[in-house]
Amino acid sequence: MAKQERAIRTRRAILEAAGAVFDEHGYTSTTIAMVLERAEVTKGALYFHFPSKESLAQAVLDEQVPFGAIPSQPCKLQEVIDITFVVGQRLLSNALLRGSVRLAVDQCAPPGVDHTGPFRQWTDHLTPLLEQARAQGELLPTVDPRETVELLVGAFTGIQLMSRALTGRDDLGRRLSVLWSHMLPSIAVPGLLLGLDSRADRGARVLASLESRVA
Amino acid sequence: MAKQERAIRTRRAILEAAGAVFDEHGYTSTTIAMVLERAEVTKGALYFHFPSKESLAQAVLDEQVPFGAIPSQPCKLQEVIDITFVVGQRLLSNALLRGSVRLAVDQCAPPGVDHTGPFRQWTDHLTPLLEQARAQGELLPTVDPRETVELLVGAFTGIQLMSRALTGRDDLGRRLSVLWSHMLPSIAVPGLLLGLDSRADRGARVLASLESRVA
Repeated sequence: MAKQERAIRTRRAILEAAGAVFDEHGYTSTTIAMVLERAEVTKGALYFHFPSKESLAQAVLDEQVPFGAIPSQPCKLQEVIDITFVVGQRLLSNALLRGSVRLAVDQCAPPGVDHTGPFRQWTDHLTPLLEQARAQGELLPTVDPRETVELLVGAFTGIQLMSRALTGRDDLGRRLSVLWSHMLPSIAVPGLLLGLDSRADRGARVLASLESRVA
Repeated sequence: MAKQERAIRTRRAILEAAGAVFDEHGYTSTTIAMVLERAEVTKGALYFHFPSKESLAQAVLDEQVPFGAIPSQPCKLQEVIDITFVVGQRLLSNALLRGSVRLAVDQCAPPGVDHTGPFRQWTDHLTPLLEQARAQGELLPTVDPRETVELLVGAFTGIQLMSRALTGRDDLGRRLSVLWSHMLPSIAVPGLLLGLDSRADRGARVLASLESRVA
């Protein structure tokens, strides 16, 4: 294994360990020693990549948007719907994503950590998709893409939080489906509505088709 | 002042101090000493009302729903809309409410504290109002009142959180207005839509009319 590749793997192992520890313990109670133990790397390797707990938290926060990565689709509104369901589904299995979401949501983060990052990054990531959807005639003329995306990001944040508190996120897919059934009639042109898929198991199905493509 | 009235005032002073400290520092970093200093009560008085930090947090959490108190209205959907705007407005000025919301949202609360309480309490408080709205013919036949209320509670939670992170809650009224403009067409019968008020300053106006009634 080349030196650079090994460094990338080590960095990723540290990030995943940090995400899991932040998810379980929150920012304040997390120590570098806990991350070291989980990541099974040396202290030197950790400090080489992340000089402080703050920088570790910042890096975990910045890892959130890549979890929304899915292949491009002809219908851009369906692509935005799918991103929400895929992120919801990945929250169930990925501790780094859960840790990142917890850091964004908890007010515990210290002044050095910008936990507004994920809100801005999701907005910047999704707004161009809705703008494309508008250009393709998928949206009602009343829709302001950025405003709708900001609503979506805020609502998603709270819905996953409530689902986590009440059911350990078991019902997150169903709750996202309820969100879309309430929002789509105000967003999509009527001719598109019936063709959009926002059923509760959408995330699981999209991920399964991704995996079969890779295999 | 009667002894009982004094006890009620002391309890309230402690709760308000605790809410403010929890809002600023979160559950983990809050100490009883910080609450004592803010409340200006004796240690004995505090422990008489709240034997532990957990019981203090639980009491702060249980204070959330009363902040949605507004007079009954003929249009029940407008009443639900108004409750969201009034709570949003009160979040700007009331540290006890802010502390309660932070405790519900942060994952920092220890096992002894049930921070699912506010989610359940808001759902139980608002669902009968939407059921009344349905009985009065205000809602589309597709609406399931409890499902819509749960969406509303979850979405509100995340929207206020995002507004707090990005603007210190300055734009919360505008964000709530965007939420309602996206949801109402899926909830209200068309004949009602134009008559509903969900403009950004609705909370300030409802509170002002309440105060003029009291005066």
